[in-house]
Formats: sequence, structure tokens, C-alpha cells
Amino acid sequence: MTQAPSALDLAQALIRCASVTPEDAGALGVVADALSAAGFTVERPVFSEPGYPDTPNLFARLGREGPCLVFAGHTDVVPTGETAEWRHDPFAATIEGGMLYGRGAADMKGGVACMMAAALAFVERRDGTVPGSIAFLITGDEEGPAVNGTVKLLDWARQRGERFNHCLLGEPTNPGTLGEMIKIGRRGSLTGKLTVLGRQGHVAYPHKAENPIPGLLRLTTALIAEPLDGGSAHFDASNLEFTTIDVGNTATNVIPATARATFNIRFNDDWTAETLGAEIRRRLDKAAGNSVRYLLDLQPSNSPAFLTQPDSFVTLVSEAIRAETGLTPVLSTTGGTSDARFIKDVCPVIEFGLVGETMHQVDECVAVADIERLTAIYGRVLDTYFS
Amino acid sequence: MTQAPSALDLAQALIRCASVTPEDAGALGVVADALSAAGFTVERPVFSEPGYPDTPNLFARLGREGPCLVFAGHTDVVPTGETAEWRHDPFAATIEGGMLYGRGAADMKGGVACMMAAALAFVERRDGTVPGSIAFLITGDEEGPAVNGTVKLLDWARQRGERFNHCLLGEPTNPGTLGEMIKIGRRGSLTGKLTVLGRQGHVAYPHKAENPIPGLLRLTTALIAEPLDGGSAHFDASNLEFTTIDVGNTATNVIPATARATFNIRFNDDWTAETLGAEIRRRLDKAAGNSVRYLLDLQPSNSPAFLTQPDSFVTLVSEAIRAETGLTPVLSTTGGTSDARFIKDVCPVIEFGLVGETMHQVDECVAVADIERLTAIYGRVLDTYFS
Ligand SMILES: [Zn+2]
Ligand SMILES: [Zn+2]
Repeated sequence: MTQAPSALDLAQALIRCASVTPEDAGALGVVADALSAAGFTVERPVFSEPGYPDTPNLFARLGREGPCLVFAGHTDVVPTGETAEWRHDPFAATIEGGMLYGRGAADMKGGVACMMAAALAFVERRDGTVPGSIAFLITGDEEGPAVNGTVKLLDWARQRGERFNHCLLGEPTNPGTLGEMIKIGRRGSLTGKLTVLGRQGHVAYPHKAENPIPGLLRLTTALIAEPLDGGSAHFDASNLEFTTIDVGNTATNVIPATARATFNIRFNDDWTAETLGAEIRRRLDKAAGNSVRYLLDLQPSNSPAFLTQPDSFVTLVSEAIRAETGLTPVLSTTGGTSDARFIKDVCPVIEFGLVGETMHQVDECVAVADIERLTAIYGRVLDTYFS
Repeated sequence: MTQAPSALDLAQALIRCASVTPEDAGALGVVADALSAAGFTVERPVFSEPGYPDTPNLFARLGREGPCLVFAGHTDVVPTGETAEWRHDPFAATIEGGMLYGRGAADMKGGVACMMAAALAFVERRDGTVPGSIAFLITGDEEGPAVNGTVKLLDWARQRGERFNHCLLGEPTNPGTLGEMIKIGRRGSLTGKLTVLGRQGHVAYPHKAENPIPGLLRLTTALIAEPLDGGSAHFDASNLEFTTIDVGNTATNVIPATARATFNIRFNDDWTAETLGAEIRRRLDKAAGNSVRYLLDLQPSNSPAFLTQPDSFVTLVSEAIRAETGLTPVLSTTGGTSDARFIKDVCPVIEFGLVGETMHQVDECVAVADIERLTAIYGRVLDTYFS
């Protein structure tokens, strides 16, 4: 058995594959080669869906016994934007001033490299055997439509009888400093489209028309007049943002017939989409009274609020972080969605990875020292998990 | 001297010209021929403006002495829309069930025909001489951009030394019954465009963004929270209508950077555009406080509030209406703009014409009996004015 590759080597190899969704450009091959060499069984299912590009995925497992600890992640990246704006070639994986530059360095080829390096080193320390199993769920469709990615990979694994006990997803969870934040859940998301109905007419004859805009102002104002809640044990307060209001009337002498607003609510575990929808309708009905006619279209969300209860696994990961960084990570449920929303249906999942400050931006980068420390954290997780 | 043509003959001849702005289709020729035959001096200046079609106009005068009573009007009409929806050919001037049908019957070929027939009959009664002068200001550009119409015709007449004492504009002023309404002024019009500035971001990270929509809701709500005034002696209360609100953000997970609203105010003689603009800014500043950043673009209006003070001329016209219809007309300042907004700078102008119920609609029509009574009313005005 050869010396396991370093996380930095793996991160550079991954960044040098221009795997902008749905392209793979060899990225999953890098993962497959390294894991196979260490004895993992590797499979690379490609999933299809009419109207979407086929996308490659990777599943690897070492050991058939439980408990099974899964590392999850993605090797696809968002587009570079204008490459001319990058000081460093986004696919060169340049190291300068202690930083590793490249698209995906933070989100999340760096994280994938760390979990691989940690697992390879752990297996090497154990002379190729694990008291349980280590698995990898790596997709090439997380940044894209995400229909041929983790959802289907989990289904594929379930059909093959794979069972997982805990999952560590390596998304960049730290806002500014490695070790400051674990994510243990996410708020749900609910989108609503509100239409207020009026009657078109001429501004000089308002009594012959019915302007829907004052009604829309009243209803939208009522939706944000009171907070939805004050937050819960592990969640911030639910928050409603209006994303657009549109009437689309270009004639300044015409009273329009309809006015529309769209809002998105990020809600905590005080609510389900159903109870929240009912509260929205209650506020609208109260504000509308008998004088405002409205339609509300609540769009079913694939993203309910979820929480991985802080338990021994969360404690184990927190302790590993504290040992390597000296920081006690905040258990957070903030931010946008990730594939954790799918994995949570299969086993407890928590997210911890690199510093996300530059993710999706020009000159995305991570500290080389953070790559080494994150690998050490994942290594401690493995040691403790299987001790 | 031959028998003067009837108002109905003239109205039918005018309707049979398909004079949809900027087409004339012979309409002003009908006017010119009839007035010339009665001894009027007729001129037909065509006005031009880069970017607009040339448009024909007509000025006619009989007599060089004062006082000069001017009849004003337009021979252009709005488009027919879908002709298949008309029960009667819009340019056939069909009479059925006591109604004269056709585009312009009400607005305002009927009115032009009545003023011509009344003037021709009056001149005939006076054997071709008038103790003063009668003039006609007829444009072919009232329903269109109105840049090559009455504005330029008034300027043209002023440069030739023409002086007018009173003007009767024959727009269809009666909502439902001939005789019920004279218009003696109009509210002013002021359009404002309000932009609230924010900072774009992701709905999951609202603290990193600044949603401009709540600020827009606050500012727009403040603009309509209190009435602008309670109306004045001859005017309704000023009225603000929002005509559109637009953000134009299609992404339901994005907080937009800016939000825009447009409003139009029809204002009475309590205000000038300047004092009203100051009141709008005062309301916005108060609602904005230090927390909402906004821009306001007030669009200078060519349509200030104006009022022809009720005096002996208004009384004279009202008496003529009462004598023929038994109704005492309301002195109104309601409704949309007309060329009176230009004429008021030259001499006192009041508006009285046919019933406008069907104007701009399919199967536009007026009662034949109303054409006869309006001609009689205009005849009484001439008799009294020159007595
Ligand atoms: Zn990611
Ligand atoms: Zn008109």
C-alpha cells in the first residue's frame, strides 16, 4: 500500500478539472482512483431525466458492517463568470501567499479533498480495515438543477440495500474562520404569489375604475406588520421577503386591472408549509376585509425546515473541531439550502467544511493551512467514531 | 344665398370621411366648403414637427370687428378597433332608431356639425353680416399626439393678429343627457416616478441585503394615507392614483436592488404643480425618515389646473341650454383633458357638446334629436352673444 495522497494534492487535482455543472471533466475519476486504490468499492451511476443533462455520480464504500459513516459532497462547480476578472486562472489551482485559488476551492472540492485524505489516512492507519464502514456519496449535480444528483443517488443506494448511520456533508459552513460554525439543519422555504384584482379605467375617472394597487399595499403591508415568530431553540426567526411587485402598466393615465407581488419565507421548525400558509391567509383575509379581492398561490416547497437534533454525533464533530481549532462551533440553521435537505431523510446529517467567504465569487480561494486542519478534523471524527 | 345645410347632413358628411388621426380623408374640406359658401374666409394651415406626421388644420372667420366668438373643435377621430364588432359600419353614418351611428358621431364630428349649422343659419338670418366676428378653430390633431393641432393653430392665429373674446369648444360634455353639464375648467395632471433604493442579495441572508420593497410600501402608503384636499369651489378633491409598481425580479430567492412606483395626480386649483410637488416630497420625507433611500422624478405637466370663472358668458350659454332642454347644466371641471387647456391661454373657454356616453367605443352614436337641439342651443348662444 502506497502513501495516501495529501488533501492539497487532491484539491489541486480536482480544481484542475473544469467541472462546471453538468460537465465532469474527470473530477469524479480523481475521486474514484484515490478511493479504489485504498480498497473502496466504487460505483459511478449516471442518472437521466427528460429535459436535463445526464449527470455522473459516485458511490464508494469500504466495509459491509455498521456503523456506516458517510461523507457527502459534490464535485461540480458554478461557472467562473468573466475569467478576465480572476487574478488566478480558475482551473489552475495556483497557490500564492498560503492560499489555494480556483473555482470550487471552497465550494467544495477543497472539502471533498479533505474528507478523502482523512479517510485514506485513517484506512492506512488501520491497515486497510475499518470497524464498520466508511462511504462516500459524491454528486456532479448540486450546483445545477439537482435532479440527477443526490436525490437519485440516495434512492439508488436505498434500492441496493445500503444503510447509513450518520452523514457529514463537507459544504463550506464557516463564514470567516475555520471551526466557527456547524450546520445542523435549515429553515424551510415557501414562496407565495399574491394577485390583487381591480378594474381598469382612466385616472381621470377613478370612480369608474378600481385601482388594485392600494389593496396590494394594504395586504403586503399586513404580511410584514408583525414578525412571524421569535425564533426557536436552534433556529432564527422566520423571515418573509418580498422578491418582486409587478403591475406592468406603462400608461400613466391608466388605472391598471391587477397588481402582483411575490414573497419568499424562510421558516423555522415552529411551522410546516401548511400551518404557515394558513397564517398567511389569515393575515391577508383580515387585511382584505370585504373590500380587497385577492388570489394567493402558495407554491409547494421541496424544502421544509429540518433539524438534526444535537446529540452525540454533533458532540463528536464539535469536539474534533475544538481539539484542532480551539473554537467551539456554533450550531447553526442559517443560510441557503444544500443537499442536506435530501440526506436528512436517510440518516442524521450535519455540515462542516471550509471557509465559504469567497464561494461563487471571482478568485475563490481557501487557506492551505485550513485544508490541512480540516483534514485533521475529519481524521479525528473518524478516529472517535470508530473507537 | 342657398339654404344652409342641416347639422345632420354635415355630421353625416363628416363621419363618412375616415379621418382617423393623422388622416383627414376630406373632413376639413367638408368644413371649408360649407363655411366658404356662407362668406367665411377659410385658411387651412398644415403644421409639421420632426418625428410626427404633418397634420391639416382649419381657421375660418367671418367679420373683422370685435367681439369675436370662436367655435373650436376637431375632425380627427380615434381608431375603430375591430370593425367586426360594430353593428353599423363606423364610417357609413347610418341612422337607425333615431340614432346616428359612426366613429366621431359624439366625439366630435356631431358637435362640429352643430356649430357649423348654427353659425350658417345665424349668418343667413343676418343676411350675411355679423355685428362682430364668428371664427372657427378646427384641428385634425386632437386625438393623436396633439403637437400639430390646436397649440400651433393658436400660435399661427396670434402671429396673424387674430384676437378672440370667447370660445365655445364642442366636445361631448354631457355624461348621459343633453344639457346636464358644461365644463368650465379641468384639473391639472402631475405624474411622479418614485424609486426606492436597496441592495441586492439572497433571501436566505437578508441581513446582507436591503430589500427596497418594504420601504416602497411605506412611502406609497404614506402618499395616500391622507386626502390631498377636500375639493374647492368648482373642483372635486384632488386625487392620486398609482398607475404601476414594478420591480421586475423573476428570481424568487433574490432580494431585489430597487423598486419603482408611478403615480398620477389630478389636482384642483388649490395647487400648482410646484406646491403639489412640495407636498409630495414632504410626505415622502416624513415616511422615509433616515431609513428609506428614494428618488422622486416629478414630470413637468403641460396640463395645470385651470378654471374659466363663471361669468356672463357662462350664464349666457347656461341660459341657452335651459331654454332648449329645460335643464340647468352643472358647471363641471371633471374628466380628462381637452384642447381647452391650450385655448384658455387665449380667451375664456367653456365646453359644451353632445352626449359622450359612447365616445371612443364600438357603435359610437348620438341621438338625431340631440343634434337638432344642440344646433338650436348654439343658435341661441349666437343670437344672445351678438344681440
Ligand atoms: Zn456547495
Ligand atoms: Zn374629442
